Amino acid sequence: MLVVKKFGGSSVANKERIFNVARRCIEDYRAGYDVVVVLSAMGDATDELLALAGTINPKAKKRELDMLLTTGEQVSVSLMAMAMQSLDVPAVSLNAFQVRMHSTSRYGNARFKRVETERILHELDSRKIVIVTGFQGVNKYDDVTTLGRGGSDTTAVALAAALHADRCEIYTDVDGVYTADPRVVRNARKIDTITYDEMLELASLGAKVLHNRSVEMAKKYNVELVVRSSLNRSEGTVVKEAKRMEKLLVTGVAADKNTARISVIGVVDKPGIAFRIFDTLAKNNINVDIILQSVGREGTKDISFTVASDDLGEAIRILEENKERLTIQEVTWNEDVAKLSVVGAGMMSNPGVAAKMFESLYNSRININMISTSEIRITVLVPKNEIDKAMNAVHDGFAMSD
Amino acid sequence: MLVVKKFGGSSVANKERIFNVARRCIEDYRAGYDVVVVLSAMGDATDELLALAGTINPKAKKRELDMLLTTGEQVSVSLMAMAMQSLDVPAVSLNAFQVRMHSTSRYGNARFKRVETERILHELDSRKIVIVTGFQGVNKYDDVTTLGRGGSDTTAVALAAALHADRCEIYTDVDGVYTADPRVVRNARKIDTITYDEMLELASLGAKVLHNRSVEMAKKYNVELVVRSSLNRSEGTVVKEAKRMEKLLVTGVAADKNTARISVIGVVDKPGIAFRIFDTLAKNNINVDIILQSVGREGTKDISFTVASDDLGEAIRILEENKERLTIQEVTWNEDVAKLSVVGAGMMSNPGVAAKMFESLYNSRININMISTSEIRITVLVPKNEIDKAMNAVHDGFAMSD
Repeated sequence: MLVVKKFGGSSVANKERIFNVARRCIEDYRAGYDVVVVLSAMGDATDELLALAGTINPKAKKRELDMLLTTGEQVSVSLMAMAMQSLDVPAVSLNAFQVRMHSTSRYGNARFKRVETERILHELDSRKIVIVTGFQGVNKYDDVTTLGRGGSDTTAVALAAALHADRCEIYTDVDGVYTADPRVVRNARKIDTITYDEMLELASLGAKVLHNRSVEMAKKYNVELVVRSSLNRSEGTVVKEAKRMEKLLVTGVAADKNTARISVIGVVDKPGIAFRIFDTLAKNNINVDIILQSVGREGTKDISFTVASDDLGEAIRILEENKERLTIQEVTWNEDVAKLSVVGAGMMSNPGVAAKMFESLYNSRININMISTSEIRITVLVPKNEIDKAMNAVHDGFAMSD
Repeated sequence: MLVVKKFGGSSVANKERIFNVARRCIEDYRAGYDVVVVLSAMGDATDELLALAGTINPKAKKRELDMLLTTGEQVSVSLMAMAMQSLDVPAVSLNAFQVRMHSTSRYGNARFKRVETERILHELDSRKIVIVTGFQGVNKYDDVTTLGRGGSDTTAVALAAALHADRCEIYTDVDGVYTADPRVVRNARKIDTITYDEMLELASLGAKVLHNRSVEMAKKYNVELVVRSSLNRSEGTVVKEAKRMEKLLVTGVAADKNTARISVIGVVDKPGIAFRIFDTLAKNNINVDIILQSVGREGTKDISFTVASDDLGEAIRILEENKERLTIQEVTWNEDVAKLSVVGAGMMSNPGVAAKMFESLYNSRININMISTSEIRITVLVPKNEIDKAMNAVHDGFAMSD
């Protein structure tokens, strides 16, 4: 049995926590497992290195930033090996050069192309715990790359896939994935099992437990993920393909306050206009989310859509600049909105979910602004100051705490 | 023209100093040189990493210590590349994996076996300044090694040799090599040119300007070394083979207070006894320096020798423990001694140097305790409290300030 265990920066932020992680890994080792550990940089180390680089060159090239940042994980893996050795367990730390974690060339946001297993298997064969630097790869020029924030999750999944691990455990500071944010919804319940697709929808909706790319990779290579806490012994949430598992109607509720609605009013009703509007925004790196089109007055139409709050000002500026070309009569917007989503693989075969959601919101007198759906998700736009109430209403409506 | 420039930790200890080094390197670059820069870790970074390791595991394995320590140079080279880039000069940082600095396997004290030049030459060809991590190598297991303290000098010389550099400049916080310690001898003069052998004798005698191993390597591969200050524009001292150069009778004077004399009295005068005494000390890792043997009473002999002050207690303990086996009647010692040496390649063909040295000391009423000589060095043991006076007397006696 082979297990890959990934611990984030806060789990190795100081001596005490390093030993806590070491002991948890040693338990599995002593139980006979082959153990591969993936670590992030200690605590705020990455931010501190970024700040240091900022003092030298605020526009530092990403190649050199990656060279700098990757020292952070090398520090944590070597210290972890020392900690395990002091507990009389053989351990060895490896960086991306040593494992040969081949990545694409793109500094700061690389993706894995191929991960070699020879060195790790050799070390496991001599019954060592193998500790690997997360977040980093080596590109075809033999240069160090980083995978972007949260990339250590992806490192763990990539290694689990390449090594055909029985399990990939992602340790975090929460017990697992919840039916809703427990800080908002008192009855929120930890989910025991969730599908990759549900996890992806929840992750992209703001449940920041797992890095999205790592879930995609786990799905692609069918790696069983476990999200659990490094602070307690709770079982956590298993993320895996749901073949025979009972598909819950609704698995979880997620909220996202980082959103704003824009409406373009009185656009000429002819083919290609909507494309030109969204193409203009996309070329300026503005991601558009929910889109709603309605008939306006006198052969025109109105189009509404949401963008991230941060992009609102820029989006309005671009639309105003291109008003004539895009045949826009007026641009209006609303910042006081939030997205509320319900996610569940069971939705696919149960058409009543949307109605149930609307009913729950209606009963709480919450107005629905816009609606968007995917196969396993329904998202509505509600007033920002009512999002917590809305979340609880929907959570209760689907009786998710049972 | 290709120049290798090495800067120590204090030269890159903060932003201001990093930019100071960057500008000096850029001067040579703009003058048309190919420039390779070797850097140590910033300021006290290495000591801080060692202290961190100490809190986790005071007996950390050297393999993991090397993995930890080598992050220090990777931080300084990436920051230096960023600094140069912010001054609009193309620069690239490389670690030991990227250059392929092949070393022996011994962690913490590795030696270079072979240094590849392909990557560096490729970067130089595209007119980049190449910044390489000092102090580190990669062994046959693909693991990181360090060369031991002062190893960055060796990295610079190894690269200069492999790249057939025209010059290897070692930047330090002094102007060059002096005829004596300028803090003690007021008339001490900076030496313009010195041979490898003289530099080796001076280095081993406590003139801590250059790492001994780097001078040995420079001699072996005939690399012209320049020792100069990173703080000013002084020309520095050139270390090279002295073929046609006028050989000075005496090049420099060096003192070493870290010494103590031990005498073993009344040893049986038969073959092999001296060997057994020094063999016993060597097996306990005690280095013995000057040795003097004299005839004792009634078929016995007395043997005196010096050890480093730190080793005195341990040496005495070992000798007392083995007193019977080594036929020692009594062990005496004296901590209040210091070594004074004069070094000069011209000595070889000038037999009067020793006499001249003794005369200078006699004129200053300084008692000589023991004497030892090599081809280009004469060392005497004098009372510790008279070492500064002795140094000045000898320096003046040979008129080294002229």
